[in-house]
Amino acid sequence: MRLVVIGGVAAGLSAATRARRIDPSLEITVLEKGADISYGACGLPFLVDGRVQNAEQLTVYTPEYFRKERNIEVRTNARAVTIAHGRREVLVEGGERLRYDRLVIATGARPASPGITLHTLEDGERLKRLILERKPKRALVIGAGYIGLELADTLRRHGIRVTLMQQSEYVLHREDPDLAALVRAHLERFGVELILGVRAPEAASGAAPGFDLAISAAGLKPNVELASDAGIELGRTGAIRVDERMQTNINGIYAAGDCAETLHLVSGRPAWIPLGTTANKMGRVAGANAAGGRERFPGIVGTSIVSVCGLGIGICGLSAAEARRDGFQPASARIGALSRPRYLGGREVGVELIADRATCRLLGGTVTGEDGVHARINVIATALHSRMRLEDFEQLDLAYAPPFATVWDPVLIAAQQLRKQIG
Amino acid sequence: MRLVVIGGVAAGLSAATRARRIDPSLEITVLEKGADISYGACGLPFLVDGRVQNAEQLTVYTPEYFRKERNIEVRTNARAVTIAHGRREVLVEGGERLRYDRLVIATGARPASPGITLHTLEDGERLKRLILERKPKRALVIGAGYIGLELADTLRRHGIRVTLMQQSEYVLHREDPDLAALVRAHLERFGVELILGVRAPEAASGAAPGFDLAISAAGLKPNVELASDAGIELGRTGAIRVDERMQTNINGIYAAGDCAETLHLVSGRPAWIPLGTTANKMGRVAGANAAGGRERFPGIVGTSIVSVCGLGIGICGLSAAEARRDGFQPASARIGALSRPRYLGGREVGVELIADRATCRLLGGTVTGEDGVHARINVIATALHSRMRLEDFEQLDLAYAPPFATVWDPVLIAAQQLRKQIG
Repeated sequence: MRLVVIGGVAAGLSAATRARRIDPSLEITVLEKGADISYGACGLPFLVDGRVQNAEQLTVYTPEYFRKERNIEVRTNARAVTIAHGRREVLVEGGERLRYDRLVIATGARPASPGITLHTLEDGERLKRLILERKPKRALVIGAGYIGLELADTLRRHGIRVTLMQQSEYVLHREDPDLAALVRAHLERFGVELILGVRAPEAASGAAPGFDLAISAAGLKPNVELASDAGIELGRTGAIRVDERMQTNINGIYAAGDCAETLHLVSGRPAWIPLGTTANKMGRVAGANAAGGRERFPGIVGTSIVSVCGLGIGICGLSAAEARRDGFQPASARIGALSRPRYLGGREVGVELIADRATCRLLGGTVTGEDGVHARINVIATALHSRMRLEDFEQLDLAYAPPFATVWDPVLIAAQQLRKQIG
Repeated sequence: MRLVVIGGVAAGLSAATRARRIDPSLEITVLEKGADISYGACGLPFLVDGRVQNAEQLTVYTPEYFRKERNIEVRTNARAVTIAHGRREVLVEGGERLRYDRLVIATGARPASPGITLHTLEDGERLKRLILERKPKRALVIGAGYIGLELADTLRRHGIRVTLMQQSEYVLHREDPDLAALVRAHLERFGVELILGVRAPEAASGAAPGFDLAISAAGLKPNVELASDAGIELGRTGAIRVDERMQTNINGIYAAGDCAETLHLVSGRPAWIPLGTTANKMGRVAGANAAGGRERFPGIVGTSIVSVCGLGIGICGLSAAEARRDGFQPASARIGALSRPRYLGGREVGVELIADRATCRLLGGTVTGEDGVHARINVIATALHSRMRLEDFEQLDLAYAPPFATVWDPVLIAAQQLRKQIG
């Protein structure tokens, strides 16, 4: 039996590793089109700003490691060009045909716009060189998703004046005007200009009028052409449709990671939110099932977190506007409270919670602040997985001691506030 | 209608405040036996070590505030001596009789042993003075619960050589020998000696052979005599038995806070774990119901957290030994992983998870480390509230970005490890 995995970053390598554990006798080959495998793309902004010193620090494992330690063959610079499922073959650039019994597609995503981007290790190293050599004074970053926000912070740390432009009125793809306003106010204090609701100038060349550097961070799109050409169905999000075992519409072909869609457990709808955590989890499940296991990936609740100019921003579930569009009757409450007592360095943390008026089910939350964001957004995320109702959320037995929290945790204060509002 | 609340610290004032919100016309009187109300007792170690500069910093509200802003009469130095429920009267020291329609008992707890203790604001100020004046060189702390551990750290910060003695083999009342060993090793690095399984010498006088200061932190006992004398039932824990509306066996009399027991949602048994968070939640529910509302306090999952010499220790649910005693078939896995990438200051965090072999239900967890403990223990606590199974826990969509976490969060790695073990 041979498993072929197309893609050697997060999902692909998780799939291969997990398949090996399930079936020690499986022949496993991973095809990676690029030169690098197994790198933490989320660390790229820190490579550019120097907190990560070199690309090797972001590379977790080498092809040699996989060969020796896991008996997995990983080929770099090996681009899959066709899946001929009738013959159970993948055609590799250069002409080689690779037979498979099971296939995992983990082709990832790519920047949606051309120009200078920050997507691969090479991108990161190129951008860092460019900044050091060209010494730009004014930079434009297009897109206020998490990569755009982190990039703005990175460039600012290099002493560059940054303008961040976003076509929608929102940041982090979150339909939440208050969050956008809060982030804009925070960025301003650090000299970063955030312009929302404006179409950015053409920047494919890496420059734009008035700026000596322009970077595209205007979202990703899933790499689905290879799958689609082979007759694999895409979902409404444009990414590959899979069931909860990560199998596509073709028996024996799985998809995982940024090329695949998943279920949003709050909205109950398919979602495409490309993130490393989800990619790894999907990959693990795809690999297990491709090797004969029986595992499931139930879906996501839309959690993400980012740090921008010292401000932590955590979001999960649905915003009030998103919940309304998804057919809920949302109520929301937003509070500010200390992350821990002021005498131990506490800072104000903002918490918004959204719940459904009809069922009191918690639907989402946002946590912002310079301290204590991570602990709170994870509580909301965990509660969303269990479809927790507000009255149960309000009674959560959360950890308290002055070095960590206040006696009424900010998320509990927000829950009390919201329940008062729902009445 | 008049509500009398006996006790003016956490639970009592939460009850009074909540009752006022529910019924603006209620007459509310709070009797506090001591001179201070509304203080954060959990901040006392930080008062002693100087990070809190004075007692006022720990006092949240004054009696005047309650009178003016909340129309609640708070009497200090007013000790309730008898509850005469037949006449609906509380007899106050000095002879006054106070009539009530509803009564909330929030009499708290007191140190289980005599001697120098750290329980009230006065205790904190007295201990601080004593250290500055007597300049002890060697101190004995009796009891390795969270107060004992924090006190050991506090004394060490004063340059005092500290020995911590605990009669059981465990720290933090957690039947977990590995945790005890880990804490001992950490304390040793800071010159604090932890001796387990030894009965401490008599120290009622504040001194002990070989030490020039001895402090008792050997646990608390609930103040239940007033209630018990009035015919109010105690539970098997020795604290006042209440239903989930916080009502005692006598209609119209509620109990809340450190004097009352509650339900442990993992073991399904009554528990008495006196903590400020629980006291406040119980008080809120008691106050709401005493004022005619209908609220419930479902119980706790046994969460606590403490910071000792820079080590965060979070525990919740049951340890493996405790789970076995409670009739489960526990399996446990313990892992070490980075709190976040090393290039952003990540440190090793230890996670132990315990689950039931029969049902795969998560039963408890421990998180230790110098970074990232709070975010992880709260995830486990929230999952325990929902009786989450390991296979669902493993797929939690937790927040990830390099400043906060690694792509596989330590709690997820522990869950994978544990599931592999259960098979």
